[in-house]
Amino acid sequence: MVKINENYLKLPGSYLFSEVARRIKVYSDAHPDAKITKLSIGDVTRPLVPAVVEAMHQAVTEMGTTEGFHGYGPEQGYDFLRDVIAQYDYRDRGVDIDPEEIFVSDGAKSDCGNIGDIFGVDNVVAVCDPVYPVYVDTNAMAGRAGEYQEELGRWNKLVYMPCVQENGFTPVPPQEKVDIIYLCFPNNPTGAVASRAQLKAWVDYANENGSVILFDSAYEAFITEDDIPHTIFEIEGARTCAIEFRSFSKTAGFTGTRCAYTVVPKELNRDGASLNKLWNRRQCTKFNGVPYVIQRAAAAVYTPEGREQTRANIAYYQKNAQVIREGLSQAGFTVFGGANAPYIWVKAPHNMGSWDFFDLLLDRAHVATTPGVGFGPSGEGYIRLTAFGDAEATAQAVARIQALAHHK
Amino acid sequence: MVKINENYLKLPGSYLFSEVARRIKVYSDAHPDAKITKLSIGDVTRPLVPAVVEAMHQAVTEMGTTEGFHGYGPEQGYDFLRDVIAQYDYRDRGVDIDPEEIFVSDGAKSDCGNIGDIFGVDNVVAVCDPVYPVYVDTNAMAGRAGEYQEELGRWNKLVYMPCVQENGFTPVPPQEKVDIIYLCFPNNPTGAVASRAQLKAWVDYANENGSVILFDSAYEAFITEDDIPHTIFEIEGARTCAIEFRSFSKTAGFTGTRCAYTVVPKELNRDGASLNKLWNRRQCTKFNGVPYVIQRAAAAVYTPEGREQTRANIAYYQKNAQVIREGLSQAGFTVFGGANAPYIWVKAPHNMGSWDFFDLLLDRAHVATTPGVGFGPSGEGYIRLTAFGDAEATAQAVARIQALAHHK
Repeated sequence: MVKINENYLKLPGSYLFSEVARRIKVYSDAHPDAKITKLSIGDVTRPLVPAVVEAMHQAVTEMGTTEGFHGYGPEQGYDFLRDVIAQYDYRDRGVDIDPEEIFVSDGAKSDCGNIGDIFGVDNVVAVCDPVYPVYVDTNAMAGRAGEYQEELGRWNKLVYMPCVQENGFTPVPPQEKVDIIYLCFPNNPTGAVASRAQLKAWVDYANENGSVILFDSAYEAFITEDDIPHTIFEIEGARTCAIEFRSFSKTAGFTGTRCAYTVVPKELNRDGASLNKLWNRRQCTKFNGVPYVIQRAAAAVYTPEGREQTRANIAYYQKNAQVIREGLSQAGFTVFGGANAPYIWVKAPHNMGSWDFFDLLLDRAHVATTPGVGFGPSGEGYIRLTAFGDAEATAQAVARIQALAHHK
Repeated sequence: MVKINENYLKLPGSYLFSEVARRIKVYSDAHPDAKITKLSIGDVTRPLVPAVVEAMHQAVTEMGTTEGFHGYGPEQGYDFLRDVIAQYDYRDRGVDIDPEEIFVSDGAKSDCGNIGDIFGVDNVVAVCDPVYPVYVDTNAMAGRAGEYQEELGRWNKLVYMPCVQENGFTPVPPQEKVDIIYLCFPNNPTGAVASRAQLKAWVDYANENGSVILFDSAYEAFITEDDIPHTIFEIEGARTCAIEFRSFSKTAGFTGTRCAYTVVPKELNRDGASLNKLWNRRQCTKFNGVPYVIQRAAAAVYTPEGREQTRANIAYYQKNAQVIREGLSQAGFTVFGGANAPYIWVKAPHNMGSWDFFDLLLDRAHVATTPGVGFGPSGEGYIRLTAFGDAEATAQAVARIQALAHHK
């Protein structure tokens, strides 16, 4: 008789964004005339830029010819893409990353989830609280999280690092020893960033304790301040303790186009094994590469036109972030993030809970948000807004929230 | 200190096709004038058909507009694709599959590897021998295969079902109880097929023992004989014991375009849990869907033009299979497969080993093949040829092998 993976049965309820979508649907069905502005899920809305569209058309045309047809590509990605990533995302920042350390994939969500394959079950995992649910859920599925404690909203084997107003939403390394550490800066969901000194403390901790930092840098393109690191590999010592996840989703609007990459340095060894080789083996065995046309699309992001055009899209979203941040501040809300990140973290007024604030904004301002508590217990009392919407709709949504605040 | 997944260290040598590629490269470097015909890896060579190319161009254009842009799609695939799959691949064969039972993915390799996530570690896994290495390696990574016994070329916890000339390369259910059973028909690497009665015996066995059949049907488009099942779900009782993997790779030349799907029936429960729900949770947590343009490409395979054009490509490869099968038979080789499959399974002459025969054909006929032993111990003494090459090059390769045979 087949035994299932019983860890799956321990997972509580449904995936956060499914529940958000469900509540929006219930509300919309009951109020068909209400025009809901979704500042909830972090999905982009600007179309692919012309340089990317052109490169894809060209690749599609190639695929229709015998000479230009591409079958199986390298599981790790084509050199034409790995080379420009190494050049523009790293070497241009003074960081030396070898193309063989770059593994192109279909998404940072896949990579963040699948990376667990190469680690043993009995590692102690530390996560920020609040946190992107994928880190937690995939570790729960693998048996590293232990049991879910409904009353606490926590797993008993995970180490939670509260990210709260008092520590500027950026945790310091724990006193205890942890093995695997998920960090995400600029942060989802709080929009916080980590300074060079803060990251250095983490790198030192990891090297001292033989830990591995899984650094999610999916939002680096939104950094505006000069001294905030864009990659963990700007920090000395990171090559012996960190793996970095990057994505084209938010940088170039690829949420529906699907391309990302993971960097595993060759110096990163644990238990006497090279993690670069382990990840390579994992990808060669369970993955067959990203579509050729998609890799051509991603490479076009690095052309002069592609860079200029994607930068303009990011500026568009950054402007939205500013409108939300300033608009809600002016309305009297306590607001974090949004300066170097596409996420704005808003404190619910009057000690209201996250879901209550979510329901209030949905009902009274027709704005969909994401409840902070969905990202972990320390997110209770907050909601997350995203800057990825249409500029006009975002401004109107902010105006409706302001009107609501004034009427209370 | 981080503990790695030690099962990875048990994996022997490199992935089969990497070793084949390495030997070809070594030979080519030493003999730069030799023009090698690769009948080794199962990669297609015909370009994408016009209907697919046109659909992709249209989708790319959409993605460049605000109105037509698509961000995150459903993790399970768009309805427009799941609906036509249910219609053309199942309902038209009299098989009722609900679109919600279809999970669109980036490849059957990914799905065959990732499906293990939803099963416990202590299941007994049965595989054919020879076998597509992904089934074995991914179970070894998960700890279900036990220890690798170098001298036997086998893992001590796997149940191997020899597929040999005596049983027509199609095994019967074992006497012992096994939990998870990988079956692939038309078979890679032997090209064998399973009859309705043979599959019925497997379905009955699985239902009686609470086993789950993981049925890889990636090559069903190559079936020419009327009474050979195209899907396990043509067999009564399969909905309570089977998961099926399908791919556009060989059907529509998508090896570099990446689209596949997995069917998990809603009636399939084990340990009191719905495997459809478990797989849905896995995909929602660790996967973010297939690119919109790729799903549009796949949907175009089912249009009248798409069906006609892809059928013509399959006919082209089927002709190659016939040329190889008949040409090698005439030259005195013992040949299997190739009638309902793109793979031809050739017995090495004079009790020669697989790798020796591989080296001989590479050196003397400039034909690259895949050594049968690379697929498992029972593959020793065979090589696999594929029908996916250029027709003229394939015919010339066959002629060179014939000339070699005559000179011996």
